[in-house]
Amino acid sequence: MEPIVLVHGGAGDIPASRVPLKLSGCKKAVNDGYKVLAAHGSALDAVEAAVRVMEDDPAFNAGYGSVLNLDGEVEMDASVMVGDRLEAGAVTIVKDVAHPISLARLIMEKSPHVLLGADGAKRFAINHGVQILPPGSLVTEQAKEALAYFKKHGGDFTEIGCDRKKGEVGTVGAVAIDSNGLLAVATSTGGISGKLPGRCSDTSQIGGGSYADNCYGAVSTTGYGEAILRFCLAHAVVKEIASGKTAQRATEDAVEAMTKQFNKTAGAITISNSGSIGIHFSSKRMAWAYRLKNEVHFGIEREQHEIEKLQN
Amino acid sequence: MEPIVLVHGGAGDIPASRVPLKLSGCKKAVNDGYKVLAAHGSALDAVEAAVRVMEDDPAFNAGYGSVLNLDGEVEMDASVMVGDRLEAGAVTIVKDVAHPISLARLIMEKSPHVLLGADGAKRFAINHGVQILPPGSLVTEQAKEALAYFKKHGGDFTEIGCDRKKGEVGTVGAVAIDSNGLLAVATSTGGISGKLPGRCSDTSQIGGGSYADNCYGAVSTTGYGEAILRFCLAHAVVKEIASGKTAQRATEDAVEAMTKQFNKTAGAITISNSGSIGIHFSSKRMAWAYRLKNEVHFGIEREQHEIEKLQN
Repeated sequence: MEPIVLVHGGAGDIPASRVPLKLSGCKKAVNDGYKVLAAHGSALDAVEAAVRVMEDDPAFNAGYGSVLNLDGEVEMDASVMVGDRLEAGAVTIVKDVAHPISLARLIMEKSPHVLLGADGAKRFAINHGVQILPPGSLVTEQAKEALAYFKKHGGDFTEIGCDRKKGEVGTVGAVAIDSNGLLAVATSTGGISGKLPGRCSDTSQIGGGSYADNCYGAVSTTGYGEAILRFCLAHAVVKEIASGKTAQRATEDAVEAMTKQFNKTAGAITISNSGSIGIHFSSKRMAWAYRLKNEVHFGIEREQHEIEKLQN
Repeated sequence: MEPIVLVHGGAGDIPASRVPLKLSGCKKAVNDGYKVLAAHGSALDAVEAAVRVMEDDPAFNAGYGSVLNLDGEVEMDASVMVGDRLEAGAVTIVKDVAHPISLARLIMEKSPHVLLGADGAKRFAINHGVQILPPGSLVTEQAKEALAYFKKHGGDFTEIGCDRKKGEVGTVGAVAIDSNGLLAVATSTGGISGKLPGRCSDTSQIGGGSYADNCYGAVSTTGYGEAILRFCLAHAVVKEIASGKTAQRATEDAVEAMTKQFNKTAGAITISNSGSIGIHFSSKRMAWAYRLKNEVHFGIEREQHEIEKLQN
């Protein structure tokens, strides 16, 4: 099987000024993820590596640079799933860890549970040697400004760098298939600016933000979280593949059905178990990129699909 | 449409000694739920009323009588969903509220979010006038004994009243259809004895523990939570109905597929949008009951289906 890693940097009303940072961040993420695959790492290792890049990058709403809740704090959600045995791990409303995606993986591998939240998740992290950052370490000035704007103007939930009227719900995610045909997914988010403390997002929900089943495909979603969660969007895409659709058709149909149902936008990225790709969003923009051999494919506008060939 | 309310009291290795309490509790729950329907209350009102009965009853692992986490505390999960607009509310790892199911409904109706957890959920409850009980109010002697046994013997997760070798994962749930044809579901649990603090269960997951879609049906699940969550069992049952199966066949097929996938048991109860019923479990026992006109149907063993006719 030819390995592939595919990422998104969030679906939403991304302003033009943030397009270059989103695209360069996605390209770096797929290249780092692909290095893992090229060195015969697993799909799980690759999606974790790709998402860690985006968690470190303040251009994305995950890890450092996450949006703030109404208390001005970062509370993050993340999930991983591996397609061969449907193993999964996830974390919700966790504070002060640099890489929630790695904590989600640790929960999958080292706890008897799938999903841990809040102080319990933090305690599990400490007990397994994960570094806890000083409070406020993940907070950026941009996040503070976005929260101040939300508190002043109210209205729809906003996010850093969005047009300040509609939310750019900038979750990040990755799906990959490795040379053994194993599928994996990883998704990570800071949620939405001005959210109530304790709000759990779709990203922490297996079947909402992430799903991977080697019989069908691996899916990571982004967009209006409360709609994705109620639609079980990632699981819905997988079920569309199970019904015989291609990865692209399944992704389009599920995203559009959710959008029609709730009048809220979303996006999803998919790799099927045969290595075919699905990318679709109903929002204005969604940054995405994938790496296949020496080509990086990417886009952020509808109908945009560019290819950069890398030198050997 | 003829109104129906259908409940379960948890799938698992329920010991014979607990059978009478489980059945009498389920019957009381359906009768209280049916009173709501008979008085032209909504399906949502009915499932909430039915689950509140079981949350108050220490024979069930929800509300008072919930199992304890490793710290000896009760942390509860609950979810509700309504089938016409796919509205949903849920709460996870919440302490010291008598009726998590009513808090889940409050989150659906009064917050911009679907799922709140931990301290944030408690703060939301306080802000909306929900009574917070003194710490320890929901803890029973049986729950303490079960945790002490778990700490001493380890092994699989156990629950109050189970055979102390395998877990009786005693979530409670209700599905209903009202005279207007509206479907709703409510599910509530204390989780599993000896769980890590912060463990979120399938019961708080829309698509795991609960799903309702008026195009297809309403489903509440129970059983081995980490498997249900990874399988998105409630959503899977609804998708089986969407593929053309009856409520009974859809429930059987999804529960058996999950059991085969993970070698873990579960149960589910379903009402389709035409008012047909599905009840199935792969565990040793699952208490269930439903009320249709003046008949209470109930069972707890495989193949058991008894009917009590009520006097007018």
